[in-house]
Amino acid sequence: MPGDLFDEAEGTRAEVMEATYSALRKHGYADLTIQGIADEFPKSKSLLYHHYEGKDEILLEFLDYLLTRYRETVPERDFDDAIDHLQGVVGYVVPLNMEEGQEDFTRAVIELRAQAANDERYHDHFTRSDQVFRERLREVLQQGVEDGAVRPVDPDAVADFVLTVFDGAMHRRVTAEVDVTRIRGEIQGYLEGLRRSGNDG
Amino acid sequence: MPGDLFDEAEGTRAEVMEATYSALRKHGYADLTIQGIADEFPKSKSLLYHHYEGKDEILLEFLDYLLTRYRETVPERDFDDAIDHLQGVVGYVVPLNMEEGQEDFTRAVIELRAQAANDERYHDHFTRSDQVFRERLREVLQQGVEDGAVRPVDPDAVADFVLTVFDGAMHRRVTAEVDVTRIRGEIQGYLEGLRRSGNDG
Repeated sequence: MPGDLFDEAEGTRAEVMEATYSALRKHGYADLTIQGIADEFPKSKSLLYHHYEGKDEILLEFLDYLLTRYRETVPERDFDDAIDHLQGVVGYVVPLNMEEGQEDFTRAVIELRAQAANDERYHDHFTRSDQVFRERLREVLQQGVEDGAVRPVDPDAVADFVLTVFDGAMHRRVTAEVDVTRIRGEIQGYLEGLRRSGNDG
Repeated sequence: MPGDLFDEAEGTRAEVMEATYSALRKHGYADLTIQGIADEFPKSKSLLYHHYEGKDEILLEFLDYLLTRYRETVPERDFDDAIDHLQGVVGYVVPLNMEEGQEDFTRAVIELRAQAANDERYHDHFTRSDQVFRERLREVLQQGVEDGAVRPVDPDAVADFVLTVFDGAMHRRVTAEVDVTRIRGEIQGYLEGLRRSGNDG
């Protein structure tokens, strides 16, 4: 596990991760090589070759790094109204327009996720990341049900459904020509439908 | 375009497509080679090398072949109740258990679709296939709205949303550990929610 070295030099690890991010945006997964990452890395290139067996080892560490950063930076509760909060999440997950860097990165993530179809290590990662995002959605829904903003739904099931919708929207938009405005409008409408109305028991 | 030869010998083309299907299930996209397809092909291997530049040319023709077959075999209208019909589609698209062959094939399709992130030819294909499936869903919803089985929704928008949900479910299940029963249950619940009730105008 290459983490040993980087624990002592967190700055270096962060630089490797930055280099990986740049190289991934530039080359995509299929055309990415360790050399391509090394080209973006300001320090000794041999460090990379010494510490990683191949590009997948770096990429898996990179995915883990992103997930850890997400977990550390997203506060547990930072909303007044659960539905408004979820609508805000839609703004990030299904933006109407993606900046070039964001689009390149989303493409790369879709390529990485496709590796999970045949590579257990990627499969394990995306199982974990799905769990993290689903749990976050579940907490928001659960809180909404408890404080009366959300209809009495099963937060586990709805969270899994919302994650599926987000995943499908992200997957479709970088692999086909889609009408993002229309899809986003339907997602927003679905979420509004979760709002507790006067008729709910 | 290799179609010229095969137009005269539709049987041979079908055999190439069969060989491609077998090889794709066996090897997945990343490890697939023309040789892998040739190994499944009962006729002259040189025919394949002569007529296709690389595996992507065969795979793109294969995807087109599947889409054409779908369009030719699915009848325009074969349902009494639109929602019941869509629930039936869920049975195919999000089966509780996939047979081994179906799972291998779904994995391969997800890998092929990921190519669309960086290869315009795959992007064009999946744009077209999304259009075909969305149009089919739209027709069912439109018919349902007209005959009163479905609430007065926008068939275009709901079709795009349903396609997004199907895509996300298929994508997630072959790239992570997911609770298919739960996701499927939520999809079924969403579709039931489209049914026209006494309160709808």
